[in-house]
Amino acid sequence: MAESLKTEIDLSQYPHINKGLAGIVAFSSNKSFIDGEKGELIYAGYDIDTLAENASFEEVCFLLWNNRLPNQTELDDLNTKLQNSRELPQPVLNYIQNTSKNAEPMAVLRTAVSMLGDFHKVEADDTEEFRINKAITITAKIPTIIAAFDRSRSGKDIIEPLNEKSTAFNFLYMLNGEEPGEEAEKTMDLCLILHAEHGMNASTFTNRAICSTESDMYSSVTGAIGALKGPLHGGANQQVMNMLLDIDEKDADPVEYIHQRLDAKEKVMGFGHRVYKTMDPRARILRGMSKQLSEETGHTDLYEWSEAILETMKSEKDIDPNVDFFSATVYYSMGIKPDLYTCIFTMSRVSGWTGHYIEQAENNRLVRPRALYIGEKNKEWVPAEQR
Amino acid sequence: MAESLKTEIDLSQYPHINKGLAGIVAFSSNKSFIDGEKGELIYAGYDIDTLAENASFEEVCFLLWNNRLPNQTELDDLNTKLQNSRELPQPVLNYIQNTSKNAEPMAVLRTAVSMLGDFHKVEADDTEEFRINKAITITAKIPTIIAAFDRSRSGKDIIEPLNEKSTAFNFLYMLNGEEPGEEAEKTMDLCLILHAEHGMNASTFTNRAICSTESDMYSSVTGAIGALKGPLHGGANQQVMNMLLDIDEKDADPVEYIHQRLDAKEKVMGFGHRVYKTMDPRARILRGMSKQLSEETGHTDLYEWSEAILETMKSEKDIDPNVDFFSATVYYSMGIKPDLYTCIFTMSRVSGWTGHYIEQAENNRLVRPRALYIGEKNKEWVPAEQR
Ligand SMILES: CC(C)(COP(=O)(O)OP(=O)(O)OC[C@H]1O[C@@H](n2cnc3c(N)ncnc32)[C@H](O)[C@@H]1OP(=O)(O)O)[C@@H](O)C(=O)NCCC(=O)NCCS
Ligand SMILES: CC(C)(COP(=O)(O)OP(=O)(O)OC[C@H]1O[C@@H](n2cnc3c(N)ncnc32)[C@H](O)[C@@H]1OP(=O)(O)O)[C@@H](O)C(=O)NCCC(=O)NCCS
Repeated sequence: MAESLKTEIDLSQYPHINKGLAGIVAFSSNKSFIDGEKGELIYAGYDIDTLAENASFEEVCFLLWNNRLPNQTELDDLNTKLQNSRELPQPVLNYIQNTSKNAEPMAVLRTAVSMLGDFHKVEADDTEEFRINKAITITAKIPTIIAAFDRSRSGKDIIEPLNEKSTAFNFLYMLNGEEPGEEAEKTMDLCLILHAEHGMNASTFTNRAICSTESDMYSSVTGAIGALKGPLHGGANQQVMNMLLDIDEKDADPVEYIHQRLDAKEKVMGFGHRVYKTMDPRARILRGMSKQLSEETGHTDLYEWSEAILETMKSEKDIDPNVDFFSATVYYSMGIKPDLYTCIFTMSRVSGWTGHYIEQAENNRLVRPRALYIGEKNKEWVPAEQR
Repeated sequence: MAESLKTEIDLSQYPHINKGLAGIVAFSSNKSFIDGEKGELIYAGYDIDTLAENASFEEVCFLLWNNRLPNQTELDDLNTKLQNSRELPQPVLNYIQNTSKNAEPMAVLRTAVSMLGDFHKVEADDTEEFRINKAITITAKIPTIIAAFDRSRSGKDIIEPLNEKSTAFNFLYMLNGEEPGEEAEKTMDLCLILHAEHGMNASTFTNRAICSTESDMYSSVTGAIGALKGPLHGGANQQVMNMLLDIDEKDADPVEYIHQRLDAKEKVMGFGHRVYKTMDPRARILRGMSKQLSEETGHTDLYEWSEAILETMKSEKDIDPNVDFFSATVYYSMGIKPDLYTCIFTMSRVSGWTGHYIEQAENNRLVRPRALYIGEKNKEWVPAEQR
């Protein structure tokens, strides 16, 4: 054994550890505002209900990149740029077609977005305009990547994007191989609007931390995808669906099922939030959509179980559902595979990430906190043979 | 124009913004300790000078993953595992061979590491042992990726790793196509030791933030590579070399060159640090290596300029060099291309990242700070045609 000296930790001098950085204000931002008590969400001036009712996802993208809504000419211009940027470089398509069919779609998306960076010219002139154009490119290509991988792993032909129509339309078209109806496009568009931006969540924060080293936007979005993938963050929507399908398969009673989980001290996915202490306004909107769609598609059982789970979580733990809870059944009603749900979240949230990147780059300081060292000191070297 | 209401910002109620999270203690950790006043660095109990003098990079990896040094059997076992894990899956090799030859090596490394995740089985049993094995796999493959891309872009055959020898030996062998001498291996090994771990730097922090969503290790390492790539972080070593080569090309006087930069309010890369207020102990060791190697290889001019720059930065700004300043000339003396320097940093730092991942996973809370909203509220919707 090495002679060693355990550091005496003087608890009175212990600096306060901000576990999970709860309550720490890391940046100022004009991207969004959350009132966790009232259940309010604002994107760059506009209430989420106003945007859900009136905006298109593309208008929300413009808003998050420019802090104001576009006029008609600007909106048309953005739509054209997005339409012209949906195609993927051939090496990215090759990768998507040749990688393991069992790869997680979020992992493939992370890799493909990272690979896009190989084909980007490093420009000396790193202006805001240049950054917005990069945000457009990445945002345009993500739906193409998701749809291409899903079709490729299912042994289907990859469908090329159209040079017209919305992000929502193109995604459903490339995924299903047929043009979506107006209702389906509208539902998808609304989901994209609701997931676009949400303050200093873990992926947006990761994205800003990467930006703060003056690294490029491909790096920051790639890192953010890795963060969103986790089940405590965007990965939760897929877990919610797995839970509902598990209840179905086991023919279980949803209320009992939740009680068992809670008794086992397990988390119920799609519930809880660091900031909201009441119903997340996005969950409120998605709840209505879930109800309507489940009736239309005959999945009323799933919707009813969701309501029963919601009630149980409220009465047992006083915890409300978050954005991921009802989005799961909305996507399910649209016939989308559960392991693509977090990819759809990405398709939308990339607008917020890149908006934050632009903001961070304008007024940057390296993100570099401290850790409290709780290990030993002054250990003496002992050669391997004597250990 | 939309009717809008600029939020009144009450400065007295402004929460304190921790810009760059300076001074915020985000985690407790037993990975490393920095005394920024004294210029001391400890990895899991051992002073950096002790490790530089006695350890191998592989011993340091074991230390960072297990918080203790290995006995001989454990060290042999780790070496065998690393040797057996150096090869790349064929699709990763295909990507490396077929992507743009002009891609930045750090971008290729980010993509290739992300792609490794496609071939990893999701194990139900996510134990510490499983995580350490994943850390071994990733650490083993990074040098192979770097060397393969560099040879491929230069039109040379890719060299397969050996099933023996150290990480440093294999890297130089795969890069140059010939076995390195003992001195070169030792120098590279020492560089790997010095860059392995450094508290809550931006990439390690990014890696922990990604881990905190319960995302996988490929995601966290990929994100960390994106952060390290930035010129304010690991990317600085490449910039230092570019500066020295620029001085050479312009036949400039290094002291004047630095004065001009400072007068233009530009940063001089390789200087300054959030934590050290004196000479970084790693810079101290690398300075000696740089001196010796430059004499041996006849690059004394570069070394002398470095010393002149150091003196100027000290007298003009009282800022000391960091780890990236002298590592640049060390790698240059070894004949390595400047755009691979940050990749070498990655090859080493992955040990610290994965050590922190293992630590974070054991005692996790979602990393989710706040942002202070400084935008408008209550903006009314106006249709696009009327904007
Ligand atoms: C989102 C989340 C990570 C927020 O985490 P947080 O702010 O760190 O909250 P905490 O983990 O400190 O939770 C506070 C308490 O509520 C409990 N809790 C929080 N979310 C819960 C859930 N989904 N199910 C059961 N209990 C939950 C915690 O166990 C904790 O209880 P305790 O005080 O008895 O230990 C957390 O609510 C969660 O894991 N939810 C499930 C995953 C999810 O849906 N994520 C998507 C978010 S959009
Ligand atoms: C490492 C670094 C990002 C730390 O940043 P930080 O803790 O936020 O430090 P700040 O940017 O607040 O610097 C404090 C002051 O020193 C100055 N300064 C710091 N590093 C400097 C450098 N390398 N050259 C010139 N001035 C520098 C800043 O301009 C600032 O001056 P001001 O107070 O007059 O505005 C910063 O020193 C830097 O950019 N260095 C160059 C990049 C580098 O070598 N990175 C590798 C780090 S291992």
